[in-house]
Amino acid sequence: MGPGPRGDELRFMSNPVSNTAQRRPARPGRLPGRQDWSSWPHYEAAAAGFRGYWYPVGYSSRFGGKPAQITLLGEKIVVIRDRGRVYALKDRCPHRGVPLSQGNQQFPGTISCPYHGWTFDLASGRLAAVITDGPASPMCGKLSQPTYPVEERLGMVWIFVGDGEDAPPIDEQLPEELVANEAVLGSRIQPRVGNWRFACENGYDEGHAKYLHRTALWRLFKPMPVWNQTHIVRRGRWIYRVQDEQHWDADFPGLGPWSNRAWYKLRPPSAVQNIGNTGSHRPVNPVIAAQEFPYVPVDADNHLYVGVMANFERGLGRLAFYAKYLGFIRWLFHGQFSAQDKWMVEVTDAPPERLYRPDDSLLKWRKLAEDTCEERATRLRAAGLDAGES
Amino acid sequence: MGPGPRGDELRFMSNPVSNTAQRRPARPGRLPGRQDWSSWPHYEAAAAGFRGYWYPVGYSSRFGGKPAQITLLGEKIVVIRDRGRVYALKDRCPHRGVPLSQGNQQFPGTISCPYHGWTFDLASGRLAAVITDGPASPMCGKLSQPTYPVEERLGMVWIFVGDGEDAPPIDEQLPEELVANEAVLGSRIQPRVGNWRFACENGYDEGHAKYLHRTALWRLFKPMPVWNQTHIVRRGRWIYRVQDEQHWDADFPGLGPWSNRAWYKLRPPSAVQNIGNTGSHRPVNPVIAAQEFPYVPVDADNHLYVGVMANFERGLGRLAFYAKYLGFIRWLFHGQFSAQDKWMVEVTDAPPERLYRPDDSLLKWRKLAEDTCEERATRLRAAGLDAGES
Amino acid sequence: MGPGPRGDELRFMSNPVSNTAQRRPARPGRLPGRQDWSSWPHYEAAAAGFRGYWYPVGYSSRFGGKPAQITLLGEKIVVIRDRGRVYALKDRCPHRGVPLSQGNQQFPGTISCPYHGWTFDLASGRLAAVITDGPASPMCGKLSQPTYPVEERLGMVWIFVGDGEDAPPIDEQLPEELVANEAVLGSRIQPRVGNWRFACENGYDEGHAKYLHRTALWRLFKPMPVWNQTHIVRRGRWIYRVQDEQHWDADFPGLGPWSNRAWYKLRPPSAVQNIGNTGSHRPVNPVIAAQEFPYVPVDADNHLYVGVMANFERGLGRLAFYAKYLGFIRWLFHGQFSAQDKWMVEVTDAPPERLYRPDDSLLKWRKLAEDTCEERATRLRAAGLDAGES
Repeated sequence: MGPGPRGDELRFMSNPVSNTAQRRPARPGRLPGRQDWSSWPHYEAAAAGFRGYWYPVGYSSRFGGKPAQITLLGEKIVVIRDRGRVYALKDRCPHRGVPLSQGNQQFPGTISCPYHGWTFDLASGRLAAVITDGPASPMCGKLSQPTYPVEERLGMVWIFVGDGEDAPPIDEQLPEELVANEAVLGSRIQPRVGNWRFACENGYDEGHAKYLHRTALWRLFKPMPVWNQTHIVRRGRWIYRVQDEQHWDADFPGLGPWSNRAWYKLRPPSAVQNIGNTGSHRPVNPVIAAQEFPYVPVDADNHLYVGVMANFERGLGRLAFYAKYLGFIRWLFHGQFSAQDKWMVEVTDAPPERLYRPDDSLLKWRKLAEDTCEERATRLRAAGLDAGES
Repeated sequence: MGPGPRGDELRFMSNPVSNTAQRRPARPGRLPGRQDWSSWPHYEAAAAGFRGYWYPVGYSSRFGGKPAQITLLGEKIVVIRDRGRVYALKDRCPHRGVPLSQGNQQFPGTISCPYHGWTFDLASGRLAAVITDGPASPMCGKLSQPTYPVEERLGMVWIFVGDGEDAPPIDEQLPEELVANEAVLGSRIQPRVGNWRFACENGYDEGHAKYLHRTALWRLFKPMPVWNQTHIVRRGRWIYRVQDEQHWDADFPGLGPWSNRAWYKLRPPSAVQNIGNTGSHRPVNPVIAAQEFPYVPVDADNHLYVGVMANFERGLGRLAFYAKYLGFIRWLFHGQFSAQDKWMVEVTDAPPERLYRPDDSLLKWRKLAEDTCEERATRLRAAGLDAGES
Repeated sequence: MGPGPRGDELRFMSNPVSNTAQRRPARPGRLPGRQDWSSWPHYEAAAAGFRGYWYPVGYSSRFGGKPAQITLLGEKIVVIRDRGRVYALKDRCPHRGVPLSQGNQQFPGTISCPYHGWTFDLASGRLAAVITDGPASPMCGKLSQPTYPVEERLGMVWIFVGDGEDAPPIDEQLPEELVANEAVLGSRIQPRVGNWRFACENGYDEGHAKYLHRTALWRLFKPMPVWNQTHIVRRGRWIYRVQDEQHWDADFPGLGPWSNRAWYKLRPPSAVQNIGNTGSHRPVNPVIAAQEFPYVPVDADNHLYVGVMANFERGLGRLAFYAKYLGFIRWLFHGQFSAQDKWMVEVTDAPPERLYRPDDSLLKWRKLAEDTCEERATRLRAAGLDAGES
């Protein structure tokens, strides 16, 4: 994704489940020109998203007493707030298939289908009344509408999409420093076209930032390297890109020199720096700015961009952060810079694909995803459940 | 559909073929939660409409000497008026597939394709001339374009779509009182999205009116019941919903009271009334207002709403009817009230479906449809024809 | 297509490859009512165009240093001009599928993908550098992007789409007089909806001009015949429609007389004339106006209309030609007249089709196409290549 204001502590959070399984060591130099994704079966099956995660679906302020329809992992969900709490149910009345989100509340704690007044309990999904069948309707108690676990965190509504398993506590899936510390956030949420996997991979893509974002206003006064040497480290449920070398100039055989330097740009730093959402694998100092990029799978062709910048300072420091965020980070970084990624995610079209050295970051991300999914599938099988991959 | 001005004499006309076959008695209380429509094979096969019927396709004034293309049961049809009479032919020139409706008349009683002047006799469909092949073209007489029987009734053009059988006289399919009496009509025709079956079922749906239409301006001063007890009776080729009980208030266990009463509404009538397009099964007094709702299948995803209100009075009574229709019935009943149904038909999405007690009206309608279709299929087989269900 | 300013020397150029194979003689009077195209397997397979030809894709002025994406025979192609010369490559970066046409030039003689800076040599397609992988990237030399032969002729860019064979010299596929003589051109290029085969066939369609174009402003003062007797002759790689009889009036049995004469039109010529893009099969006098109609296949549903009128005069004659072209030919002939064909190509829908006598022109064109394609397929097989028909 590129550099943040304090780029040394940025991480990648698209697969936030602890995974301690043994990694197969990657053979360096053997980056394949893969024609399909059969090496990553869970990844390949998950066109509409990985199940088993909490996903942010919008700002808390968006969800009130008027039902809203969202799509998450291809599933239509009605979201409504009742007496302060947010609820989520499958958005299809079992009677005749009408979206419950086009209905409203006739009784506290319920939602009624607009067509015949089938009325569901928000918390349990139980059919609580069928208004047009009278108080003694025999339908009640025979039917339940599927519900989704809902939480509110960081000013957003989060919904868990699973396969019948108990949802893990949401705090186990959030970044530790956001759970353990009070933070203020600057953020942008934007519906985007393109598969969520390309968005996630773009966010962790080692190679692209230096080239694609070289023209970003965010980097107006700072050059980008031409190329890097990087390695990926894994700590708990996270992976990190760690910079080993940075090359600010290069001379390409037969073509000539190439650099992102310019007379109006600062001189590059002499020490190697982590650029973008990479970071050291040292333990995180929680009282720093954090910058996260969840890409929420809407369906196979759409995702939700949730650009978040967190700040853990208090008092005047918070004011300064807001001024900085609203004054320019929001427009330059979550705006024009991120729109370059939006563009690429829209036009990426794989497989087939030919990967190259910097795509080791993608491969490590896919392997992390595979390991984590496999671990979950094993857990579900042991519980007699079926991971709902198609 | 809801109440008309004289709701006690309204009927349902979507399946207007006489049927005297033995009905299987419905077992009360055994309304199934059906997941598919395999119990109603004719109904299931007829995504684009039932064949063997006369359908209204528009006001007579719409069809003149300029050819018009309509779609009926998924078939493209060119409709043109010649010397006062309306004709309908398959709208695809057999030469190169160009729509005849984009051509015009070169000779009285014919229509010519715009591309090469293939000229078809409107009445017989016979290829009467191929202008660019000269007067001695050997094609003439070798080819015939399929034609459709056409009639004009009630100010509209009606077209019969069958499978090669002779069309029955249209008056056998129209409501008796409209055939036997001189009527004036108020009507609206509107192309609508959604399958025709959902529109027909909505029109006869016992459960929905009280809930969906409780907010209709048409009912501004009149409350709707909460729930009803109804039974369906069959008389000849028609079925009727007859109200047994009406409940204006209800107290739902665990939820509380619910009613459509309001201080500004009239008190509900003390006697049970038929609401909407239900009616007594007593013989019809023909000199009353009649209100019919054909839903014309355009294709599997579209239908034509034809809202008709008939009045059989003469002289000043007619003037009063027109004043009433144009003054408010048209806007409130055929307008905003009916738009609530339009909304539901658009979003209904079945199967799967879970039916409930008031859906006995739908089941009886489906059974009537199945019986009538089966009777026709038997008749066609006996005549060596094949009912064109897909 | 209809008459040009000097209609006696117009020809049809959609299949411009020399073909000397033996033709099977057509049996006159046996024009079939074909239900499918299985008699013409090459033609049937070529929904997106015939391979093995040079196609004009736009005016030379359209293609500069900014990459442009075109679609030709269903293939996305990036076209870019570098130091005066135009190049064409497959418009999909093999890395992650991003269109190269959204990138730009980082080094002379190359084009770079916008995402990670994969840089391809324009002339050879060779991967010349991967900017974000540094100067020693091992990818270079391992990958080549497919390229397309490009030429500029008649003020347009022409691209050859084949199956790996060497492109024949473009001048072998151009009309001889345009190659041998200096010409000035008036032309219009317009993207159009509809399959390219219908456009080609319309261009050579013997029957349609007299009827469809009878109302064209281009023919305001000149009548069209009612029907013709024509035969098709083949000379080298071209076929010609030659008029044998022209009938200016006809009396259709049972219908009456029909003619395109009018009081304000000139009297028809007494001698038989070739109308439209027909012509004598005598050797071409090169110093005349030529009028060509390539229809370039974009994909199965779209084509590019390239209306060209050539003039071989010098000096003031050229000025007169330009005045005539820009003053009215462009608007009346390449404009409103041709828009009638555009309309028909959009609505033609075959197979199935029923052909008639004048369609002998279509049949001869299809046979020419089949013969030429079969000859090419044989040549490719001998070279160990496979004609890429699907």
